[in-house]
Amino acid sequence: MLNQSIAEVSLAEKIIAGDARALARAATWIENRRPEAEHLLRELFPRTGRALILGITGAPGAGKSTLVDQLARALRAEGKTVGVIAVDPTSPYSGGAILGDRIRMQQHHSDPGVFIRSMATRGWLGGLAAATTEMTLLLDGAGFDAILVETVGVGQDEVEIARLADVTLVVMVPGMGDDVQAIKAGIMEIADVFVINKADLAGADKLERELRSYLTLAHRADGWVPKIVQAVASDGKGIVETMAAAREYHSRGRSRERAADIWAIRLREMLREKILDRLPAAEFAAGGREVAERRRDPYSVLKEWLERI
Amino acid sequence: MLNQSIAEVSLAEKIIAGDARALARAATWIENRRPEAEHLLRELFPRTGRALILGITGAPGAGKSTLVDQLARALRAEGKTVGVIAVDPTSPYSGGAILGDRIRMQQHHSDPGVFIRSMATRGWLGGLAAATTEMTLLLDGAGFDAILVETVGVGQDEVEIARLADVTLVVMVPGMGDDVQAIKAGIMEIADVFVINKADLAGADKLERELRSYLTLAHRADGWVPKIVQAVASDGKGIVETMAAAREYHSRGRSRERAADIWAIRLREMLREKILDRLPAAEFAAGGREVAERRRDPYSVLKEWLERI
Repeated sequence: MLNQSIAEVSLAEKIIAGDARALARAATWIENRRPEAEHLLRELFPRTGRALILGITGAPGAGKSTLVDQLARALRAEGKTVGVIAVDPTSPYSGGAILGDRIRMQQHHSDPGVFIRSMATRGWLGGLAAATTEMTLLLDGAGFDAILVETVGVGQDEVEIARLADVTLVVMVPGMGDDVQAIKAGIMEIADVFVINKADLAGADKLERELRSYLTLAHRADGWVPKIVQAVASDGKGIVETMAAAREYHSRGRSRERAADIWAIRLREMLREKILDRLPAAEFAAGGREVAERRRDPYSVLKEWLERI
Repeated sequence: MLNQSIAEVSLAEKIIAGDARALARAATWIENRRPEAEHLLRELFPRTGRALILGITGAPGAGKSTLVDQLARALRAEGKTVGVIAVDPTSPYSGGAILGDRIRMQQHHSDPGVFIRSMATRGWLGGLAAATTEMTLLLDGAGFDAILVETVGVGQDEVEIARLADVTLVVMVPGMGDDVQAIKAGIMEIADVFVINKADLAGADKLERELRSYLTLAHRADGWVPKIVQAVASDGKGIVETMAAAREYHSRGRSRERAADIWAIRLREMLREKILDRLPAAEFAAGGREVAERRRDPYSVLKEWLERI
C-alpha cells in the first residue's frame, strides 16, 4: 500500500510535468477501472476547470473526426495543447476504437502537445459517460488548454456526453435523408454552434435557412442564439470561424446553475458505476441464472443485493 | 396502503384479462418509475418467459419501423398478439417519441391485439435499458405472443438492448456510405438474422455477397450461421422469409448460459436504476454545486453518498 501510494504521487507529478507515457498509463487506469485512478484524479482535481472543453457531435457521416482533427491543428497553431477524447461506442465488438486511435495518431504522433484517446465500450451497458468524465478530468488536470470530446450523436448517452461540455458543436451535412433529419431533431436543442460541414455539397444554403427558421422558433432560456458556420473540414475551410463561434459562446461564461447541473449529472453517472464495482461479477452471474430459470423474480434478487451493498 | 395494494391486484388481473387501458396505465408507471410498477411486475413475473422477443436494430434510414409494422401485421394475420416497444432515445428533447407513437398507432389503433409503446428518455443518462426490460416483462406477463423491440443500432445502449432479445435482426440497406458501414461493424456480431431492406435498390446482391464473405470469417461459438434475407418492407416483400429465419434460430432454443447472461446484464442495469432512486434529486443538485465550485472533489461527494445509501 505504501509503495503504491508513493508511485501515485510520482505519477501525478509526472503528468503535471507533461510526461506523455505517464498520462497514457493513467488513461488506461481509467479505462480499466483501476482504483488507483480515483486517487490520482483526486490529486489532480484542484488543477481542473481551466481547459476549454468542446463537445462535438452529429449524425454518422457528418465528418466529425475530420473537423476534430482540423480544430486540433488550429489550436496547435495558436500554441495551445489539445486533448482529444473520441467516444466510440459503435464498435463494441470489433475493436474499431483501437484501430481508429491508430489512424488518428499518425498525423499527430510526433507532437507532444496533442493527446488522443478513443473510449471503447467495456462490454456493459452504460459506463461510458462516467469514464469520459474521468478522462476529461485527467486531461484537464494534466494542463491541456483545450479538450475535444467527439461523440456520435445518435444514442442517448452520446448526446448527453457532448452536452456536458463547455460548448457543444453539432455537425450536420447537406442532403441527408428524412430519418437522419429525425435524429438531428434530438440534438437540435443541445447545439451552441451548428457546423454545416461538407458545405461544398448542394443544399448547404438550404440547410442553413432551415436551421435559421428553426432557431427563430426555438428560444433558449439563456438568450443565446446558436451560431451557424459553413465548413469544408477536409479542406480546412470554416475552422477559424467554428473556433470563433465556440469562443464567443464560451466567453459569455457559464451560469453557476448550468455548471452545477452538469456536475450533478456527472456525479450521478459516477455513483452508478461505483456501486456496480461493489458487487462481484459472480453475484451477477448467479442472480442471472436464478431469474432466467424463474426460480426467483428479479425484484427479490435486487432487494437482496441492495441489502448486501 | 391497503387500498393501493387492492388496486394493484386488480390492475394485474385486468392486464391478464386483456384490458388495454390497464396495460397502458402500467406502462406509464414503468416510464414514470412509480413504485407500483415493481409490485405489479413481481405479480406478473411467473407468467413471463412465453413471448417470442425479437430485437430489431440497424443504422438510421434502414427502414426499421416499416419492417416492424410489417412483422406486426404478419403476426396478426397468424392470429398472434403483438407488443411493439420502440426505443427512441434520439428525440430526448423534442417529444419525437410521442409523435412517433401517434403515427404508428393510426394503422393499428382499432386492433386490441397490438400494443405499441415508444420509450423516450427520462432526461438522464442511461435508464433506458432497465425501463425496456420492465416494459418487455409487462407485455410478456400480459400474454402477448410476440414482442418486437426496435432500437436505433448506433449507440451502445441501443445495440445492447436489441442484443438481449431472443432473436436479433439487424436491418441494412444497400449503398450506404463508409461511415455507416463502420457503424454496421459494431452490430455485425450481434445479428442472428440480417435483413437487407430496400432490396430493390442497386447493390442489394453486392451487400449480400459482402455479408456472406464476412460470415465465412466470423464463426459463432453457438455454431449458428446468421441467415440473410432480402426484403422490401414497404411492399411487404421478404416479411414471411424474415419471420421464418427468426423462428428457425429461435427453435434451436437458447442455451441456459445465454439466458443467464442476459438476465445478469438486465439485473445489473436494474440495480443501477434502483440505487439512483434512493438518493433524492436535491442531493445530486447540492453535490453538483459543491463540485462545480471546486469546494469539494467528486470522489469525496461520492464517498459520502455511498455511506448514506
